Amino acid sequence: MTKLRKLILISNDDGYQARGLHSLIGMVRKYGDIVVVAPDSGRSGASMSISSSTPVRNKLIKEEKGSDAEGSLTIWSCSGTPDDCVKMAFENLCPRTPDLVLGGINHGDNCAVNAHYSGTVSIAFEACIKQVPAIAFSSGYTSADADFSGMTPWVEKLVEHALTKGLPKGICLNVNCGAYDEFKGIKICRMGMGDWKEEWQKSIHPHGWEYYWIAGYYAPTDGNDEATDTWAFKNQYVAVTPLQLDLTAYEAMKELEKDFSPTPSFQDGE
Amino acid sequence: MTKLRKLILISNDDGYQARGLHSLIGMVRKYGDIVVVAPDSGRSGASMSISSSTPVRNKLIKEEKGSDAEGSLTIWSCSGTPDDCVKMAFENLCPRTPDLVLGGINHGDNCAVNAHYSGTVSIAFEACIKQVPAIAFSSGYTSADADFSGMTPWVEKLVEHALTKGLPKGICLNVNCGAYDEFKGIKICRMGMGDWKEEWQKSIHPHGWEYYWIAGYYAPTDGNDEATDTWAFKNQYVAVTPLQLDLTAYEAMKELEKDFSPTPSFQDGE
Repeated sequence: MTKLRKLILISNDDGYQARGLHSLIGMVRKYGDIVVVAPDSGRSGASMSISSSTPVRNKLIKEEKGSDAEGSLTIWSCSGTPDDCVKMAFENLCPRTPDLVLGGINHGDNCAVNAHYSGTVSIAFEACIKQVPAIAFSSGYTSADADFSGMTPWVEKLVEHALTKGLPKGICLNVNCGAYDEFKGIKICRMGMGDWKEEWQKSIHPHGWEYYWIAGYYAPTDGNDEATDTWAFKNQYVAVTPLQLDLTAYEAMKELEKDFSPTPSFQDGE
Repeated sequence: MTKLRKLILISNDDGYQARGLHSLIGMVRKYGDIVVVAPDSGRSGASMSISSSTPVRNKLIKEEKGSDAEGSLTIWSCSGTPDDCVKMAFENLCPRTPDLVLGGINHGDNCAVNAHYSGTVSIAFEACIKQVPAIAFSSGYTSADADFSGMTPWVEKLVEHALTKGLPKGICLNVNCGAYDEFKGIKICRMGMGDWKEEWQKSIHPHGWEYYWIAGYYAPTDGNDEATDTWAFKNQYVAVTPLQLDLTAYEAMKELEKDFSPTPSFQDGE
């Protein structure tokens, strides 16, 4: 490699030691230089939270030079949230603006509305804000020593696409692979809908007071709809859901404008 | 009031003692019974994070009976995130499913892409998941003793609308009022775009190691576009941005389907 290699930034929400992260590094290292900035421990359910009232610290974990066959690899751990990691990487830890940002591979899926809670998906959204193509990868395998190698050809296909063609501005990909070792193919999906049931499990502290663990089960409302990521994920497809940074409910605007805007008392004065 | 009063759930991300929360309670108490479940301290920038690995505890702060003139008021503090507060309220602390969920009033705006980071907005999104109408209120006033009374007629207008007409399924309102005491009217907006600059401020710990505070300034890329909440907020309108729970980038699906799906090797077998 003599020309400037592509730069890929990777983060996750399971922490810099997670197997899913290192599997992903292995799958994409051939495409360029890799900078990893990942939380110092698990941050599941971090959503797009930022450390607004606590200081954030980074530690250099590994620094490997590149070769003809593969790019360099630099790994930082960061005491902040997944979103902090991306912000930190862009401003302080990447040698230049990354060509691609990847989240994952998450131990556990981020299908459907659960993308909202996901630290893995937040990595892709933060990259959207910074106008860099991004993909969040999650797996139905949840154990710490899970084997994610069945995802390899699909991760390669999607990463190659993003590195060569890019992605539309303001749009990232949320990729979910079920707990399978082979997949039928890629399916472009819409986000499934649903809610959690029995969300809190009550326990009693030794001192007698009540506390709760978040728990429960996810109940999809449209899980049999083949258009959803929920369905594709369960049916051995690589579920690829394009997500948009712009949350505006454009279709609702007209009706609301009729009801509210401009308010009559000010119409004349405008 | 002899008939069953409306039930309004209120949370925020500035904590149960915040003035913005108590201003909002004062503005809407005439509409029904109020249950507040709010974080025990500030949770700015919490986004839709949930306490996936720490237990959550609630404390009853206040319990006032209703009268002919106004509904009852129950206030709980919760050790979790704003999103946890909503989940906790629905499952354990509300006497019935709320008719309306409100977030705020936040000390500080949540315009544009910053809605993604907002704990206040997360309250409305969690209510969307639970299919209950919801509004997030934020103000340009940031000080702890800010006077939010200029928002009163607009909060009333929006709350009355949501209680009588409801809101479309899967859609909540993100309402931002600038640091003014009077407003020109309601403006239905789209979410503005932009990014933060100089996001990290480096400091040195007494022991010599570096750490960072998140800081910087927000730089809109479309702040002069009158369609954005960024513009409306700055120009003395009540900026009302309808946000949708469904993040799917529908317009990008067709192009991605051409590139990816169904993958040729499996086309025949399906």
